[in-house]
Amino acid sequence: MYPYRQLFDFTQDIFLSMGCPPEDAKLATEVLLEADLRGVDSHGVARLSGYVRLWEAGRINVKPKLTIVHETPSTATVDGDSGLGLVIAPKAMDIAIQKAHQVGTGWVSVRNSNHFGIAGYHAMEALAKDMIGWAMTNASPLVAPTYSTDRMLGTNPIAVAIPTKNQPAFVADLATAAAANGKLEILQRKEKKAPIGWIQTAEGQRTTNAHELKEGGALLPLGSDRTHGSHKGYALASIVDILSAVLSGANYGPWVPPFVSFLSPPDDPVGKGIGHFLGAMRVDAFRPADEFKEHMDNWITTFRNAKVKKGEKAVLIPGDPERETTQKRLKKGIPLLPPVEKDLEMLGKKFGVTF
Amino acid sequence: MYPYRQLFDFTQDIFLSMGCPPEDAKLATEVLLEADLRGVDSHGVARLSGYVRLWEAGRINVKPKLTIVHETPSTATVDGDSGLGLVIAPKAMDIAIQKAHQVGTGWVSVRNSNHFGIAGYHAMEALAKDMIGWAMTNASPLVAPTYSTDRMLGTNPIAVAIPTKNQPAFVADLATAAAANGKLEILQRKEKKAPIGWIQTAEGQRTTNAHELKEGGALLPLGSDRTHGSHKGYALASIVDILSAVLSGANYGPWVPPFVSFLSPPDDPVGKGIGHFLGAMRVDAFRPADEFKEHMDNWITTFRNAKVKKGEKAVLIPGDPERETTQKRLKKGIPLLPPVEKDLEMLGKKFGVTF
Repeated sequence: MYPYRQLFDFTQDIFLSMGCPPEDAKLATEVLLEADLRGVDSHGVARLSGYVRLWEAGRINVKPKLTIVHETPSTATVDGDSGLGLVIAPKAMDIAIQKAHQVGTGWVSVRNSNHFGIAGYHAMEALAKDMIGWAMTNASPLVAPTYSTDRMLGTNPIAVAIPTKNQPAFVADLATAAAANGKLEILQRKEKKAPIGWIQTAEGQRTTNAHELKEGGALLPLGSDRTHGSHKGYALASIVDILSAVLSGANYGPWVPPFVSFLSPPDDPVGKGIGHFLGAMRVDAFRPADEFKEHMDNWITTFRNAKVKKGEKAVLIPGDPERETTQKRLKKGIPLLPPVEKDLEMLGKKFGVTF
Repeated sequence: MYPYRQLFDFTQDIFLSMGCPPEDAKLATEVLLEADLRGVDSHGVARLSGYVRLWEAGRINVKPKLTIVHETPSTATVDGDSGLGLVIAPKAMDIAIQKAHQVGTGWVSVRNSNHFGIAGYHAMEALAKDMIGWAMTNASPLVAPTYSTDRMLGTNPIAVAIPTKNQPAFVADLATAAAANGKLEILQRKEKKAPIGWIQTAEGQRTTNAHELKEGGALLPLGSDRTHGSHKGYALASIVDILSAVLSGANYGPWVPPFVSFLSPPDDPVGKGIGHFLGAMRVDAFRPADEFKEHMDNWITTFRNAKVKKGEKAVLIPGDPERETTQKRLKKGIPLLPPVEKDLEMLGKKFGVTF
């Protein structure tokens, strides 16, 4: 178990060593480690060396100059100048929040960025302002559309965070694939089988082989197959792709650059970098904030008290499991798998930072 | 097969006979029949007698005075005065579009409304203005949250319509349940079994009984079970419920009044009527419209040309099947099931309108 503070200082030192300005290094660390706190282990420090390798490959600019290339009172398009998504996305979200302050809502589409950690972090930025936060991003293509064998879409998450009064906030953060790649990676490490409905073979057949992506297979959209609504998951992933990238001028669909540095980005890009879409809606642009938040408390209490199926413990509210994990990990520390520990040790050596 | 024109005139006459002002009767008819054209047979004329019965029960005001009860430059909250959702929603969408013209985007939350037909109609209203359209609504509770046996949410659809240049528009319109209730009704009529993953029994067990809802069962969220992401479908349905109703001051969750007139609305309402959420985003609030639309054409062509799985005909773009059905039905007419024909004949007799 690693204390949050220890991982924070280490990660921040790595970003500083890469040349990030101090305030950016701190912000990137906060965003990255939010994944570890919330239990989304695939998106946290486990990815730190991935970001470093992208930087070494010249694909990340550690001193980006974020620019607004287009705007209206309620919208902006931001160019992230190849910066870390971990830094660009929070700054873009700030713009959305400022616009919401002024005209009720603010919506920012971002191009020329890189992976931004967990979507939930960015959506939650709105909560303290009594705003509903939205965050989406596209990502390297791993998911096949319904009826297809080609990997055309990322696991393209949608996060929506909604403020409350006394209850904890409603925080939904969902990959639009049946299962995120991180879950597959866990099965791979444990040499376990994947459930039918998560992946398909290169020919589009059902499989339980958790390693199938390496054989040309693909992740399946939320819904898994046509009968169970995979066309809906495919549509949702597409909406995320379009709002994040076609709207901003980033790469979309199969053109999204891969996160892993050993795969080169397509040499016929249709845009710049990857894209995000961020939004903030002032609650009191619709209804007095206190009234809304009281009803949210009622909504949450009502759903929490819904009848539980035999064999299950409780009906959960989106955000419940992640909040519990955060509380536990802040107290007891963050567990790291041995390969991640090794990875961080090597990073530490490379930059002369103690892990 | 019934010519569109015939069903249009008949439906319009019924709305006129109920006392709707001529322009409202025409609008309601157009919205309702869009469902029949697009092949969403459960939401079209098959529901006309349902709307009539709600009106007879005093739950629909045919001369509503729509009011904006709260607004900012990019938002509005609308009270639908118990009007037909078929009329209130398009008018609320007009407000969203006007606001988008002025400040880039417009977002309208609607309370005190009734069912609004298919969400896709309202989202598509934005297309001709080079805007991205959004439409959501909550609905009578039929869906159980993950781990619960209680029906807490409607099939709460999300529709997003995105303009293009030469390609047909991208139109996603999806219920956030694994399968919409209309699909179950078809199986019920044919005395067929439902696939595992669409419904559960009153105790929360898997079942193939298409009649299970009558026995206290519930529809399942998109994803079907926890392993396949039903918590994501549950979260999406919840977001729709909150944006449509907690934000506007309509009834939410288990308080949403039932569409069928023989069931009374809860006697402890938490708001007024049912709620919708409508949005319009000017494409050129982010990027020159032509540039965006050219890339949308490229997006669509790329996905349409993705490799097809053996045994399937084509990779579809959201909106493809509905557009094909519309073209066919405008030419060859709209098929009606015998019980629907009877229903319309009875309606015709009641109002002295020839069917």
